Amino acid sequence: MNVPKIREVGMAKSPTVEDVARVAGVSRQTVSNVINAPDIVRDATRQRVNAAIAALGYAPSMAARRLRTQRSATIGIHLDPYAGGISGIVLDRFIHALTDRATPRGLRILVYAAADADEELRRIRQLREGGEIDRIVLTGTYAGDPRADWLAHHDIPFVAFGRPWGEPGAGAEMGHPGRPWVDVDGAAGTRAATGHALAAGRRVAFLGWPEGSGTGDDRERGWREAMGDAADGLRWTSVDSVSQARAVVDEALAEASVDAVVCASDTLALGAHLAASHSGRPDLPVIGFDNTPVAEALGLSSVEQRPERVAEAVLDLLVADPATHDGDWHRLITPELVVR
Amino acid sequence: MNVPKIREVGMAKSPTVEDVARVAGVSRQTVSNVINAPDIVRDATRQRVNAAIAALGYAPSMAARRLRTQRSATIGIHLDPYAGGISGIVLDRFIHALTDRATPRGLRILVYAAADADEELRRIRQLREGGEIDRIVLTGTYAGDPRADWLAHHDIPFVAFGRPWGEPGAGAEMGHPGRPWVDVDGAAGTRAATGHALAAGRRVAFLGWPEGSGTGDDRERGWREAMGDAADGLRWTSVDSVSQARAVVDEALAEASVDAVVCASDTLALGAHLAASHSGRPDLPVIGFDNTPVAEALGLSSVEQRPERVAEAVLDLLVADPATHDGDWHRLITPELVVR
Repeated sequence: MNVPKIREVGMAKSPTVEDVARVAGVSRQTVSNVINAPDIVRDATRQRVNAAIAALGYAPSMAARRLRTQRSATIGIHLDPYAGGISGIVLDRFIHALTDRATPRGLRILVYAAADADEELRRIRQLREGGEIDRIVLTGTYAGDPRADWLAHHDIPFVAFGRPWGEPGAGAEMGHPGRPWVDVDGAAGTRAATGHALAAGRRVAFLGWPEGSGTGDDRERGWREAMGDAADGLRWTSVDSVSQARAVVDEALAEASVDAVVCASDTLALGAHLAASHSGRPDLPVIGFDNTPVAEALGLSSVEQRPERVAEAVLDLLVADPATHDGDWHRLITPELVVR
Repeated sequence: MNVPKIREVGMAKSPTVEDVARVAGVSRQTVSNVINAPDIVRDATRQRVNAAIAALGYAPSMAARRLRTQRSATIGIHLDPYAGGISGIVLDRFIHALTDRATPRGLRILVYAAADADEELRRIRQLREGGEIDRIVLTGTYAGDPRADWLAHHDIPFVAFGRPWGEPGAGAEMGHPGRPWVDVDGAAGTRAATGHALAAGRRVAFLGWPEGSGTGDDRERGWREAMGDAADGLRWTSVDSVSQARAVVDEALAEASVDAVVCASDTLALGAHLAASHSGRPDLPVIGFDNTPVAEALGLSSVEQRPERVAEAVLDLLVADPATHDGDWHRLITPELVVR
């Protein structure tokens, strides 16, 4: 900040928000954020903008400010089209829990549709520019997800439900959250499920998805850690479909003797349960993942993701002030095995 | 509108929105609606307010108006806490579909939590006064629901998903929607299911909930209409629980010979299917209602509510202009039997 620079922009009449933005070297939106929602702006940026405001003698319109800040923070979250399937309920439970916990905190939840990541980013930009949302909850993250980078680059506060696999701490630094996330510790869930299943006998199979998905590989890891060398030859693979899982387990049970099956999802667990029932082993212990109404209805044990805890942690990080928050920006929620 | 009345309120300086409200005999909010969202105000009220505006020479603040109308209409909808169960997915599918169809129309969806009807009305009032929502979608309606009356009384545009049982046309009149609703024709669904089941044999049982719920009685009616006199002695009752339904059907199958079972929900259908399987009749046709992932996974036929069509109809009614809309304010969506 220096006087010549201020003179350059020309101060014949009252300074405007554009003048402040030019002097501070930030966007108009960032100046607006410093005035209306200072806690969402990085420390260094806020100081630069405040210095520019002071140097220029800028007086933000109090009326405009009041109009904006009358609205409490609104959180935008993408709602996928309904795709069917047994485990879709987990994301819906998360959104129920988020709404349930946001409302008493005075936070609003605005849901929007988008066909893909590009459309979602256009939508976020539009809602943000219209002053309709202030913060974002990202769901359905994946390795190389462009959304987290885009949000970080545009200084839009966000928290992801789900890890950006392969780059857990990316961008986090003192005073700035980088890419904050909350996720469920899948390996801990299958470790607990396998530990429980081992009570039935040593041969505990794992029915998982094809390798290569962060979530699936994580869930397999928990089973391997609990099994050690005894895991050999007991890893079965199916896409997330009841009928394919049933066919895979039908075939596997004809060849190998097992004492229990730990599954990467309730969909796989239902397939395994049907296969076991039709192979004359209706009591073979089958443990699912996600604790959906299907597992509950069939009396199968399942790993409960605890979406309520995820929602609570997401909200905590979403309203945390980067300037003062000294905890981690990444939280792993330990799931709970529901035994039936 | 007359001159003495105007003089009564005293016009020493520029007229305000309060002056317009007093002269027109409406609330400040209604004046604001006439200015910012005229299509949501009744014809007669709008004319009265516009006459008052003209008589007083009131000039709404263009800046304030622009600030408000930059935001497109936002629809508020209550999201219940997650209660588990198999059929909860229907409401979630509806909300997915509503979001999916509202977004391209430029409408926003804001979800909020509330423990009961009173809290919901307080929440709606608060969101409405803050300018955060303009319209409401009611779900979970029931006979004597106080919310519809309250919304109608406060001139807040709304559409209910579900009938206010017992008073289908309440309050509707020319140029005013009264209490608009969209619902699924449950009787048509069970009539279709029963018609299909009759191909398996004449003795088609109905497994329904205890009498007295609008939705449940409607679904039973469809079965009775399709069965005629043959219905005698084939009406079974269970609360919406897999285990109770299973016990009821276990007992019923031991006493009566039936050719198929039509159920009021997929939860009941799963109970009936488990009972049939364990009574040595795994192939007894069982037809559910709601077409949830459970029915899909188990290969059971089920009546699909088509939440996407409900959402489309709700949005149509929600944006309809009461002054020009000449169609019905109540729509029954015909469900579809998904045969497996």
